[in-house]
Amino acid sequence: MAKDYVVGIDIGGQSSKLGVVDARGEVLAQSVIKANPSADAAVIVKELAQGVIKLVAQAGKHGEIRGIGVGAPNGNYYTGTIAFAPNLPWAAHGSVDFAKMLSQECGGIPVALTNDANAAAMGEMAYGAAKGMKDFIMITLGTGVGSGIVIGGQMVYGSDGFAGELGHTCAVRHNGRLCGCGKHGCLEAYCSAVGVARTAREWLDMNPDEPSLLRDIQNITSKDVYQAAKDGDKMAKRIFDYTGRILGEKLADFVEFSAPEAIVLFGGLARAKEFLYEPTLKAMNENLLPLWKGKVKILFSQLKESDAAILGASALAWEL
Amino acid sequence: MAKDYVVGIDIGGQSSKLGVVDARGEVLAQSVIKANPSADAAVIVKELAQGVIKLVAQAGKHGEIRGIGVGAPNGNYYTGTIAFAPNLPWAAHGSVDFAKMLSQECGGIPVALTNDANAAAMGEMAYGAAKGMKDFIMITLGTGVGSGIVIGGQMVYGSDGFAGELGHTCAVRHNGRLCGCGKHGCLEAYCSAVGVARTAREWLDMNPDEPSLLRDIQNITSKDVYQAAKDGDKMAKRIFDYTGRILGEKLADFVEFSAPEAIVLFGGLARAKEFLYEPTLKAMNENLLPLWKGKVKILFSQLKESDAAILGASALAWEL
Repeated sequence: MAKDYVVGIDIGGQSSKLGVVDARGEVLAQSVIKANPSADAAVIVKELAQGVIKLVAQAGKHGEIRGIGVGAPNGNYYTGTIAFAPNLPWAAHGSVDFAKMLSQECGGIPVALTNDANAAAMGEMAYGAAKGMKDFIMITLGTGVGSGIVIGGQMVYGSDGFAGELGHTCAVRHNGRLCGCGKHGCLEAYCSAVGVARTAREWLDMNPDEPSLLRDIQNITSKDVYQAAKDGDKMAKRIFDYTGRILGEKLADFVEFSAPEAIVLFGGLARAKEFLYEPTLKAMNENLLPLWKGKVKILFSQLKESDAAILGASALAWEL
Repeated sequence: MAKDYVVGIDIGGQSSKLGVVDARGEVLAQSVIKANPSADAAVIVKELAQGVIKLVAQAGKHGEIRGIGVGAPNGNYYTGTIAFAPNLPWAAHGSVDFAKMLSQECGGIPVALTNDANAAAMGEMAYGAAKGMKDFIMITLGTGVGSGIVIGGQMVYGSDGFAGELGHTCAVRHNGRLCGCGKHGCLEAYCSAVGVARTAREWLDMNPDEPSLLRDIQNITSKDVYQAAKDGDKMAKRIFDYTGRILGEKLADFVEFSAPEAIVLFGGLARAKEFLYEPTLKAMNENLLPLWKGKVKILFSQLKESDAAILGASALAWEL
C-alpha cells in the first residue's frame, strides 16, 4: 500500500496536538491530548502512541503512514531526544530517547523530531508563506522567541542539533533586561509576548502622568496591549514601535549572516502585524548594508493557527 | 591525462597572487601580479590569464589543471561576477563577468569565484584548522572584518550569494562608530586592524595623563599596538582586552545562529593571539546559552600566511 500520509505531533507544556496530514497540507483528522503533569516519559509516550493509532484508524489510513514528525521544546533532530525541557515535567531533568520510544510504541513507524520553532519553519516551507523558498528565517514570536533557519533548502541544525537560538542573541547590550535563560538583553526579553507585557508595565510606571487604556488592567498581557493599540491607545502603539525597532535591528544582523530571501514571522505576537510590520521593516532596512536595503521581505505566516503546529511537525515526516 | 592540480588566484587591491596547488595543499609554483590601476577589466583578465598559463607551464602541469578558484572582494559565487568593489578600479563602478572572461582566456578551464573571506574559509576547511569540520565560522580580522560560514559542510552563500557579512553586524548599538559602509557600530569598526588603531587614538586622547609607548607614534597602526602590548604597555593590552570583548560578544550571537563546532580567526590582527584569545573566549562564553558555554572552540588559522590566500582560492576549484 502506498504510504502517502504523515502524522504531525506538536508537544507543548499544556497539551499535545496530533494530526494526520496529506501531501497538500490538509489535516484529515486531529486530536488533542492534555498534559499529564505527574506521568513519566514511558507513560507519556504510550499515551501519545495510543492517540496516534486511534487517529490513524479514524482517518482510515492504517498502513498508509510514511512517518511521524514531532515538534517539541528542546527536541534534537540528530539524537531524537528531548532533554532538559523546563515546560515538560517528564523531560525536564534529563534526556528522553523520545523518537526511538515513540517509533517502538507505534509498530516501527519511523519518527523524526526537532524543536518547535524548526518544525514551524518546515511547515511554512512545505505548505505556507515560504513555499518554494530555499533561504528564509522563521521567527516565532510567542511566549518566548524561537527561530528556524533554512539555508539552501536545508534546515540548519548546526554541529549539535541546537542551531537557531536567535531569541537569545543580544538585542540590548547595556543594562539589558534579565532573560529567562539567565543572560541579559536577549531578543526574547523584549520581542516575545512576555517582553511586550513587561514593556507595558515598565512604561506605565515610568510615565505615571500619561493616560493609557492599559493603566486599569491587572496582569497586562500582550493581547491587552494589542487590543489597546487597536482602540487607539498611544502608549500601546508606541510599545509596538519600540518592539518592532528592536526586532528589526536584530533581523538586520540575521540577514547579514545568511542573506535570506525573507523573514517569516509567526506566533501570537505576529497577530499584531498592523502595528509591528512597519517599525520592524524600517529598523531592519536602516541597519542593513546597502546591497540588501529594501530587498528582504518580512512576511507573516500563512498557516491557519489551529493547524500550524501539526503541519509544521508533519512536514518533517516527509523526509523520512 | 588526470587533472590532479588546481590554480588559486587571490585578487587584491595592491596585487594579485597566483599559485598551482596539489590535493594536499602544497603550492608547487606561485607568482604575484602588481595591480595596474589604469587598466580596464579586459586587460586585467588577460594579464591574469597570461600569468596562469605561464605558471602552469613553470610547474610542468599543462593539461593537468582541474579548475581555477578565485577569491576576490565582492566576488559572487552564483553569478561569477565581481561588482562594485571599491578597491578594484576595474570593477568599482559596475559588474564584471569575471569567471566567464577568465575561463575563455585560459582555454576553457572552468573558473569558480567567491569573495576573499569565503575563500579563506574554504582553504581552512580543505587544508587548515577546520579540516574535517562540517560546521565552523571563519572570521578574517584584516583591514576590515570578513567572514565565511560553513554549515553542514557547505559554504553559506544565501539567496543572493552575499551571505556572511558578519563584519557589518551591529556590535555597539548606541553611539557606535561610523563604519566605512555608512552604518554605525559595525563589528568591523572595532575589531579590524583599522578599528584597533582607532581605539588607540581615541584612548590616547581620552586619557592624556596615562603614559603609553603608543603616545610617541605617528599614524598608529594595529601592528604598533601589538608591539607595544608585547613590550608590556598597559594601554595597548587594554586595547586588546576591549577588542576581544567586543568580538567575543558578537561571536556568541553567531554561535546562537548556526551552532558551529569552532570559530577560526585569521588575518593580520589574529597574529596578536596571545592578547586577543583570552578576552575573546571569555566574552563569548559569558554571552552564550548554558548549553554552549565552554564547548565552542576559538582557533587560529593554521595556514602559512604567505600561502593562505592562494590555498583558500584554490580550494574552491576542487569542487569544479
